[in-house]
Amino acid sequence: MTTRRAEPRVVIIGAGFGGLYAARALRDAPAHVTVLDRTNHHVFQPLLYQVATATLAPSDIAVPIRWLLRKQKNTEVLMAEVASIDPTARLVSCRDGTKVHYDFLILAAGARHSYFGHPEWESFAPGLKSLEDAIELRRRWLLAFERAERATNTEDRVAELTFVIVGGGPTGVELAGMLPTIARFALPRDFRHIDTTKARIILVEAGPRLLPAMPEALSARAARDLVELGVELRIGERVTNVGDGFVELDGEHIDARTIFWAAGNSVGGLASAFDAPRDRSGRVRVLDDLSVPGYPEAFIVGDQAVLRSRGADVPAVAPAAMQSGRTAARNILHTIRGEGRERFRYRNKGDLATIGRYKAVGVVAGRQLAGWLAWWTWLFVHIMYLAGFRNRLSVLLEWGYSFFTYDRGDRLITVPPPAPAPAKNRTIEPTW
Amino acid sequence: MTTRRAEPRVVIIGAGFGGLYAARALRDAPAHVTVLDRTNHHVFQPLLYQVATATLAPSDIAVPIRWLLRKQKNTEVLMAEVASIDPTARLVSCRDGTKVHYDFLILAAGARHSYFGHPEWESFAPGLKSLEDAIELRRRWLLAFERAERATNTEDRVAELTFVIVGGGPTGVELAGMLPTIARFALPRDFRHIDTTKARIILVEAGPRLLPAMPEALSARAARDLVELGVELRIGERVTNVGDGFVELDGEHIDARTIFWAAGNSVGGLASAFDAPRDRSGRVRVLDDLSVPGYPEAFIVGDQAVLRSRGADVPAVAPAAMQSGRTAARNILHTIRGEGRERFRYRNKGDLATIGRYKAVGVVAGRQLAGWLAWWTWLFVHIMYLAGFRNRLSVLLEWGYSFFTYDRGDRLITVPPPAPAPAKNRTIEPTW
Repeated sequence: MTTRRAEPRVVIIGAGFGGLYAARALRDAPAHVTVLDRTNHHVFQPLLYQVATATLAPSDIAVPIRWLLRKQKNTEVLMAEVASIDPTARLVSCRDGTKVHYDFLILAAGARHSYFGHPEWESFAPGLKSLEDAIELRRRWLLAFERAERATNTEDRVAELTFVIVGGGPTGVELAGMLPTIARFALPRDFRHIDTTKARIILVEAGPRLLPAMPEALSARAARDLVELGVELRIGERVTNVGDGFVELDGEHIDARTIFWAAGNSVGGLASAFDAPRDRSGRVRVLDDLSVPGYPEAFIVGDQAVLRSRGADVPAVAPAAMQSGRTAARNILHTIRGEGRERFRYRNKGDLATIGRYKAVGVVAGRQLAGWLAWWTWLFVHIMYLAGFRNRLSVLLEWGYSFFTYDRGDRLITVPPPAPAPAKNRTIEPTW
Repeated sequence: MTTRRAEPRVVIIGAGFGGLYAARALRDAPAHVTVLDRTNHHVFQPLLYQVATATLAPSDIAVPIRWLLRKQKNTEVLMAEVASIDPTARLVSCRDGTKVHYDFLILAAGARHSYFGHPEWESFAPGLKSLEDAIELRRRWLLAFERAERATNTEDRVAELTFVIVGGGPTGVELAGMLPTIARFALPRDFRHIDTTKARIILVEAGPRLLPAMPEALSARAARDLVELGVELRIGERVTNVGDGFVELDGEHIDARTIFWAAGNSVGGLASAFDAPRDRSGRVRVLDDLSVPGYPEAFIVGDQAVLRSRGADVPAVAPAAMQSGRTAARNILHTIRGEGRERFRYRNKGDLATIGRYKAVGVVAGRQLAGWLAWWTWLFVHIMYLAGFRNRLSVLLEWGYSFFTYDRGDRLITVPPPAPAPAKNRTIEPTW
């Protein structure tokens, strides 16, 4: 028997789906596992849009990482943001000064949105990748309704009630479907000066159709369902500028105080530590076994890698992150045991996107689904996957409650609002 | 019948217990009611400490104000922070430029903590009055455990695991009782490098005993129960200095990275708009009918007023705020109807403080209670008072779950941590 100290050290960067499933696959490994994450929680990303739209509470979809891994005695969790990787010294350095050596590395740090060369747009049009993002989006649209209620002229009111979502992928479609549902059913009675059902929700997609990863028939169905909910679709239109309170679509100026970004992926700089080919968005083209070419001890999984399976590119979705995390972990185990490594094989279990409150579209087990049936399938799948029993129950209750009552959900603005606009001399008179 | 425009306008500043109960009492009043609050939510303040200690989620104890008042067609809610009151012009001005005229005013803006002439201590030792405060406290102690897990020397680790709570009133006692419970039962399995049961929790009270508003026997019982939980009591000791990572008690220096403040009340500047006598902490001595001397149209309720009832001062507690809010509203109704005003009479329904997970002390209906029975009474009373059905159910489930499992609650750090400490070159080695 080797001494404990001699056991190899595995460092996992990021505890999203890729990192978490890798860590779990190493549960019984003869190794010391260190999980590094800049937050203290794992987030069930496919439901982030429900927090952003105030349907679920943050704690319904997020769980402390160390709680999830508490029973794995070979695993430690450190809350630290990784600053750099030194592949030669096999050393990971964090912003707070923490340094960790590794024998094997799994990089699973995920992606942020891509602003296509305009990083200055981000503050006006934030994206939805983290729990903080979701809370910020929620704060923004809730504040827009609050400001609209206090507005003293029509122009301000209209701008406050105009919401633009950029990107027609699943996140954009799901956000665009929930906002009119809330504006029509949950909010009207709460306000006196505004008609929340008049809120204008615009979904922009530069490509030729929504949900480009799905069959064309489902894209068409999603578009029809969204239009029925009152969403204004701008397909094939390009965002040419974003600023404080406005967006430009192919030059057309739209006053909108709330803009959300759900387009494109971009990978942070960590992967550039490796001298390996990367694609336009910064992702590394990993080998069949998910290791970095030239670095057999370093694996990249999830959104940070160009994953290939059976000769085709694998989409950047949660199941791909889970499966690649697991394969990388197994390949570390194989190596420790002196066995050969396995190839990554993506098993496509399907793909679903909800449209508003009780519709969805998607492909499951090769079959196209739409409407109610797709929605129930989506519900079932997501509850099954939710990490931790309490969340499942709590989410079911929240959903059940808001489903039957169209009620308030978690409409809390908990970060202090930004500095107020320059004071105008305006007096609010009873008008309702 | 008068026209709607001729109806008197009532402005309520603050939607805590005082303001909310005042607004509700004006439900059927022939008046336009405007509720102003700097946040969008009403908070059930007696349970704030449970959010601060990650037992409940923010949405369990907070509800949008406009949702609570959505059925009162004569009432509007504006999210705006009041900057000043002009009692001569009867005009309330908000920071964002919103101005509202009133015929009757109810000032119910509550209190903040008092740092006894040391406002610079607040950033090192935040208090617990708002939902943001609770989330900040939760973030601080959660981060302390995270930093302790990454610490590379004993000195840092001990300082990170030292928690000081200043103030032996109900808030201080309830915070001090929950922290060791969590450190002993919920956290140990989650960490590898630290023994969370070794966390040192110090409760400081400058006066001669804890819970000074309760009978002496209950103070003694609370002290005994806290010591049993492992809390270090510093009774009769005065805080002489607070800084970044330390506190001084009568000159004794204690390294503590987490310090909470639960001592004293101080009232903001709004009440000073009135030319009326105020006490040391800024509260206005209102008349029997709760109006400001010399301003029969302006009422002050809750923590901002020195309330008197049957010749005695009324404590600054939630029931006093509710009752005074209701009385002020009724006196506005009386005045509108040309009737005489009523005197405020405080009905003391009792007073309870929990000690840790399942004990409490208090006086209910004139009887002293302690231990389990007091805790169950506390639970019953608080669930009955919680605003909104969904919260009641949700809180019961959360409590039931954490009661039986000692489990994780809502341990999310959702605000990005502050800038990291200057990087030291430290390497973490497996030590567990």
